[in-house]
Amino acid sequence: MRLEIETFENFLKKPVKERLSYYEKEERLYHIMRSQQFSLEFMEKLFDTADLIKFITRKPNGVEFLHALLKHKRAMLYFTQPSTRTFLSFLSACQIVGMSGGEVRDPSLSSEIKGETQEDGLRTISSYFDLIIMRDSKAGFSEYMAYLLDLTGRSVPIINGGSGKDQHPTQALLDVYTLHRSFQDRGGISGKTYGFVGDLLRGRAVRSVIYLLTRYSDLEMYIVAPPSLQIAPDLEEHLTENNVKIHKTDQLDEVLPYLDSLYMTRVQDEYDLSGESSIIDYSKFCLTPKNIGLMKKDAIILHPLPRRKEIDPVLDSDPRAMYWRQLRNGMYIRAALLLYLFKMEHRLVDY
Amino acid sequence: MRLEIETFENFLKKPVKERLSYYEKEERLYHIMRSQQFSLEFMEKLFDTADLIKFITRKPNGVEFLHALLKHKRAMLYFTQPSTRTFLSFLSACQIVGMSGGEVRDPSLSSEIKGETQEDGLRTISSYFDLIIMRDSKAGFSEYMAYLLDLTGRSVPIINGGSGKDQHPTQALLDVYTLHRSFQDRGGISGKTYGFVGDLLRGRAVRSVIYLLTRYSDLEMYIVAPPSLQIAPDLEEHLTENNVKIHKTDQLDEVLPYLDSLYMTRVQDEYDLSGESSIIDYSKFCLTPKNIGLMKKDAIILHPLPRRKEIDPVLDSDPRAMYWRQLRNGMYIRAALLLYLFKMEHRLVDY
Amino acid sequence: MRLEIETFENFLKKPVKERLSYYEKEERLYHIMRSQQFSLEFMEKLFDTADLIKFITRKPNGVEFLHALLKHKRAMLYFTQPSTRTFLSFLSACQIVGMSGGEVRDPSLSSEIKGETQEDGLRTISSYFDLIIMRDSKAGFSEYMAYLLDLTGRSVPIINGGSGKDQHPTQALLDVYTLHRSFQDRGGISGKTYGFVGDLLRGRAVRSVIYLLTRYSDLEMYIVAPPSLQIAPDLEEHLTENNVKIHKTDQLDEVLPYLDSLYMTRVQDEYDLSGESSIIDYSKFCLTPKNIGLMKKDAIILHPLPRRKEIDPVLDSDPRAMYWRQLRNGMYIRAALLLYLFKMEHRLVDY
Repeated sequence: MRLEIETFENFLKKPVKERLSYYEKEERLYHIMRSQQFSLEFMEKLFDTADLIKFITRKPNGVEFLHALLKHKRAMLYFTQPSTRTFLSFLSACQIVGMSGGEVRDPSLSSEIKGETQEDGLRTISSYFDLIIMRDSKAGFSEYMAYLLDLTGRSVPIINGGSGKDQHPTQALLDVYTLHRSFQDRGGISGKTYGFVGDLLRGRAVRSVIYLLTRYSDLEMYIVAPPSLQIAPDLEEHLTENNVKIHKTDQLDEVLPYLDSLYMTRVQDEYDLSGESSIIDYSKFCLTPKNIGLMKKDAIILHPLPRRKEIDPVLDSDPRAMYWRQLRNGMYIRAALLLYLFKMEHRLVDY
Repeated sequence: MRLEIETFENFLKKPVKERLSYYEKEERLYHIMRSQQFSLEFMEKLFDTADLIKFITRKPNGVEFLHALLKHKRAMLYFTQPSTRTFLSFLSACQIVGMSGGEVRDPSLSSEIKGETQEDGLRTISSYFDLIIMRDSKAGFSEYMAYLLDLTGRSVPIINGGSGKDQHPTQALLDVYTLHRSFQDRGGISGKTYGFVGDLLRGRAVRSVIYLLTRYSDLEMYIVAPPSLQIAPDLEEHLTENNVKIHKTDQLDEVLPYLDSLYMTRVQDEYDLSGESSIIDYSKFCLTPKNIGLMKKDAIILHPLPRRKEIDPVLDSDPRAMYWRQLRNGMYIRAALLLYLFKMEHRLVDY
Repeated sequence: MRLEIETFENFLKKPVKERLSYYEKEERLYHIMRSQQFSLEFMEKLFDTADLIKFITRKPNGVEFLHALLKHKRAMLYFTQPSTRTFLSFLSACQIVGMSGGEVRDPSLSSEIKGETQEDGLRTISSYFDLIIMRDSKAGFSEYMAYLLDLTGRSVPIINGGSGKDQHPTQALLDVYTLHRSFQDRGGISGKTYGFVGDLLRGRAVRSVIYLLTRYSDLEMYIVAPPSLQIAPDLEEHLTENNVKIHKTDQLDEVLPYLDSLYMTRVQDEYDLSGESSIIDYSKFCLTPKNIGLMKKDAIILHPLPRRKEIDPVLDSDPRAMYWRQLRNGMYIRAALLLYLFKMEHRLVDY
């Protein structure tokens, strides 16, 4: 018997925990939707896979070896919200593991103009491809698509590549992966002091990575933002519940000396309702050749990019600047995720 | 000596039969332009090829075997009319048999803005690629391009991927292929009763598939449409000449019990001159949880997609609903066509 | 220590000679920016490579052999200025030598709308890809990007695929390659008489190919243009300094009998400031079935394409018309350039 199909509106009313249970099959993650899905064990294994991929790409015939792993699979990059960085990162990740595929970027070229629902459009795509990577501006929409596809009996994995200001789980993974690599010879992610700076209310990257960090223990966090852009109450509550020591402030320079990791972000003014960001003096939330001197010698600097003025480009060559490496890490962690989703990660040991 | 080159206008005045003769080389189809080109023998062989491709994709190393067949060939997908479904289906078909390639979708990005003719643009493309798959809104334009390219002495096959409301030959092939598969254990396509419902005047898919069905014998057809959207006189004449028993009506529910196959279509209101479709009560031409009960238990339901309200999505899980499978069949039949055009279909038996 | 980073404005003030020195590494070309970089020796070797590629593509398993050469490398086609021809030519070249990759064509889809600088955008791309092919409307911008990327310590080669009306070095290469092939059994490029016709002031293709031809000796040139579109003084000076005999005129028919090679061009009216091209009688600068009779029997006709009315399409089948072959040569010379940049050109002898 066919189950009753929920409307999008009703689906969003389901508790997150119930929704998360839909995205697993045979005790593995099947759809990648929210960073809450990632256990510490899952992440550590994925990080090892990403390390191995990075290692193999530099070896003779390594690239060819990786190409062979998923050359029988094809991916759809369904990006109806503008993106260069995430799009190209996923495209590169696909190519690294040998996947071919297609893309939908401009819905105005599609048959939605013939009155087709987006649901039918995505079902069409799932008929042609083995995986869908999806960026859409509507919070929860990729989750709803995953739910609908599973009901059809011909489901393929969906990866949420960014859903409005809601979730961007693979960005969170690459951020934590970068922390993992940076701190692996210094006792790991646990026990360190983290700074988050900028628009912490609306930046989905920050929200996701802060959630993920609570998988680790003994953390201290400095939350540096203009008062109107401080973290949301639910996130603060989550941190407190997980025994993270937090300090909220709007004085960047005062906290810089304490940080092992500094995570900078830009103002997300595309989400302004009426230009409210324009009155904020954002210069107090920038890293410059002057205040970088306040930081520890072995601290690291992250940024999800794109940046505006938060970090002076002249600092790019500072050895603490990790954001360009962070960007490349994204490619490797996404390639690792593709291998995981098709249960091929164990094949790397064959190399 | 160079032959006189016909203008597009004069080319269109040539009888179809004369034009069809241009699209053959060495007694094989070379350009795929109109469904009239497909003989029963051609179709049966192509269906076998598609069956084999589908079979092989599910076998170990089957995907790799298929990839190797045409990896030395490259296709251009020249789609200046909006399309997701057909575009992605052809793209997937190309990738299944290993072809790489390029695409032109938005002529505003092209050098036509520098004053180049579309003819020169396509000759450029034929210089770089081994095959052109072309969707264009002008009836007969892909035929004219095939004609021009052949005159240059450096021709490549062109597949018509939909030419305005005129022809969509590969859609017709996939429709008949789906009927073939559905009825192969029940005596085949001949001798069955077919229903066609909706905008039968302007839907090119319906026109093409009805033409192709006349290759088979002993057919009965119920043609269900609003009076203003009934099939064109030439099509009706063609059916009568081929001894198809036809019944024209606008009462869907009355004919549902007689059908072995029900082919639903949407209103093609993009071809309205002045909103004439808007006054039609299309609810009488829809399949619902209520009237589906009138159908035979072993009937099948087709739709070329995209759909609007003609078929309630809740019916997608009914075992008679074949339209999503039909969509996937399109990918396989197009892959079969690619192998045929490069004379590689016999290589499948090597597997 | 980090060097001071020049602004784009200041970078453009550097003498070309100094800039060219940046684009070499280990005595090989690393970035392909301006046709002045190509020595006679470099060109002759590249032409041999292109000949070999063309030869191998026609041999059994030749295509597969070529695919294997660079299948471990990935290219970004960054084309923010409209182009079909050059884009597809480079795409095809990449595919011939096995490269996969991605494209950025419409900056409005990118994160520049989030306030990212184009510099950061390109650094992002260089993090994901092994090579950037770049078309941009700003003169010198791809050079500036090459300069910036080299400073980051994680540089990849950049090929200038056309920079406004400034430079289009690979177009110049394919033009000279076509002359090379046409004249190789007739004593080569040196000692021949060349005609250039049309908008010689603003056509970057002409400027580049004229520069490159001065690598050869004993040349005579007829420069045929409306007075307001004659070659720029610096180019004329360069020709005189290199002992090229030049004749400036606006009478095409008078010079046709003397030419071994006729290079036609279109009016570049996209660079008009106020429609000044519209008052020129361009019909005097066209090749027609009538005046082609004035040409030598073994002369050749080139055109960078796209064309408008400069060459009547009916002349395409004249054996002297080389422009469609010239177009295909572009694909092979670009493939040769890709092999050169990754130091793989010597691998062709393995075949």
